[in-house]
Amino acid sequence: MSDQSVTIYVCTSCRTEGQPLEPRNERAGARLYAALDEAASAEGAPHVTLVPVDCMSVCKRPVTVGFSTPGKWTYVYGDFAKDTPEAAAATILDSASRFAAAPDGLIPWKERPEALKRGVIARLPPSAA
Amino acid sequence: MSDQSVTIYVCTSCRTEGQPLEPRNERAGARLYAALDEAASAEGAPHVTLVPVDCMSVCKRPVTVGFSTPGKWTYVYGDFAKDTPEAAAATILDSASRFAAAPDGLIPWKERPEALKRGVIARLPPSAA
Repeated sequence: MSDQSVTIYVCTSCRTEGQPLEPRNERAGARLYAALDEAASAEGAPHVTLVPVDCMSVCKRPVTVGFSTPGKWTYVYGDFAKDTPEAAAATILDSASRFAAAPDGLIPWKERPEALKRGVIARLPPSAA
Repeated sequence: MSDQSVTIYVCTSCRTEGQPLEPRNERAGARLYAALDEAASAEGAPHVTLVPVDCMSVCKRPVTVGFSTPGKWTYVYGDFAKDTPEAAAATILDSASRFAAAPDGLIPWKERPEALKRGVIARLPPSAA
């Protein structure tokens, strides 16, 4: 389904409400990143590049994730801690495939996973750069 | 102060609470874009490229604005309708100069205008692309 590589940014600093600061690798964001890394390896997802980010400045809607491909709209989504890391990772990889298949990054509404419909935080147009 | 060009994205679809859908050019976002265009021309701000955007999918924090330069962090801010378009435009152009002067786009906290401290919506790291 995918025809272009997708960078997936994952905020590894994200914590759910009341979650302690330490250990950092047990934060919701770090756990989602680990689950995504494992799922992408298991699936063999050569079109996906995972990038851990030390704070995406959203904070109130953990876990925050971004999708980016040069020449397409960039999207930021949140609320992925509402699910288990494994389930969220599966949704995110499926979404990345749909994003990759959309020439401009705009996934048709009917095909958009529920998590993306509800979780959008912001989007930016294709860069002129 | 600036040493690199900055693309400023302005969500021209943004409306304040209760603002009617039409006319589109009276929406808070469109008015801010017009004020920015006028202020940038008056200032002679050759380092700034203004890009109107038809919805940045934030909606709840009008007006939404993004700062982007290749190789730097990309920032999305909101709440610029809390001020007059002219005052918000001045703050945004000042912020763009500070963003341009920061090699990685990270404006030191003490120098950061209050509107940016309070209004951050999300950020993305420098693209690997």
